Amino acid sequence: MKRRELVNSACPIDRSLSEVGDTWTFQILRDAMHGVTRFTDFNKRIGLATNVLTARLQKLVAVGIFEIHESALGNSHEYVLTEKGRDFHTVLAALRQWGQKHLFDDDEPMNRVIDARTGQPPRQMSLTAEDGRELSPDDILVVQSRATDPIETAVPIDTPRRRKV
Amino acid sequence: MKRRELVNSACPIDRSLSEVGDTWTFQILRDAMHGVTRFTDFNKRIGLATNVLTARLQKLVAVGIFEIHESALGNSHEYVLTEKGRDFHTVLAALRQWGQKHLFDDDEPMNRVIDARTGQPPRQMSLTAEDGRELSPDDILVVQSRATDPIETAVPIDTPRRRKV
Repeated sequence: MKRRELVNSACPIDRSLSEVGDTWTFQILRDAMHGVTRFTDFNKRIGLATNVLTARLQKLVAVGIFEIHESALGNSHEYVLTEKGRDFHTVLAALRQWGQKHLFDDDEPMNRVIDARTGQPPRQMSLTAEDGRELSPDDILVVQSRATDPIETAVPIDTPRRRKV
Repeated sequence: MKRRELVNSACPIDRSLSEVGDTWTFQILRDAMHGVTRFTDFNKRIGLATNVLTARLQKLVAVGIFEIHESALGNSHEYVLTEKGRDFHTVLAALRQWGQKHLFDDDEPMNRVIDARTGQPPRQMSLTAEDGRELSPDDILVVQSRATDPIETAVPIDTPRRRKV
């Protein structure tokens, strides 16, 4: 699937990937959530080629994930997350929890996030129904409709899972 | 940051990206959650070069996200998600919700998931504290400890956010 197809896909995951679908972009956004705003600081932390970092930051500005703020001294600018950018926090949190659960041995040092107020780790995230039931991949179906249409008018999408049901 | 550094990073997001950090892998896992198991079906849906798909699937088997099941007829095999693979569902669900919220005009057709039991969309996901408070990027701090150590013994990690506090 080419980038143009991703951008126009009816699948929100495809569209998201057209904006954030590579390792460096995830790392940039993780560091931005922790307060990094300057080119030199991203560069120091992520350690990727200057031209690649420039291209990624420009892309993230173009799609409205960052906005540029001129610094008070006027000699540099900062990449500041927009509301859309800050919302990506949830995706990073889910990815972090998956990594914590599956990719560390018990005796390895691991970066963890804590609630600044209590010092305790957040709850494990999951997809849940309106009534609070946890939804596994087997509990969901894919349908298609316009964003503003009532969900009841949505049309089923053919997936192998649906055919089995 | 090179792949080897990602694999050994203390950050669970880095480690996760070393296993799933590209667009195609996210698409493969999305389709696997919907019941796709065969090479030809992944190929048809995602439409990427055969050698690239082969490499991605082999990688996902190597890291324990898929396991290979021989089909009943013995003439082909299936890529079946392990528990670790199925757990990635939460990350995809968060990415889907972000895309739904930020990347569609009102009149565009959009793929949506529904709870198979009720036909209703799932709840909007968020990172929450133990007491249920929603945690924004400003409400969390990054600390480091071994996975099995009590969180109280964890050491703060220096981030610009922390320095501001």
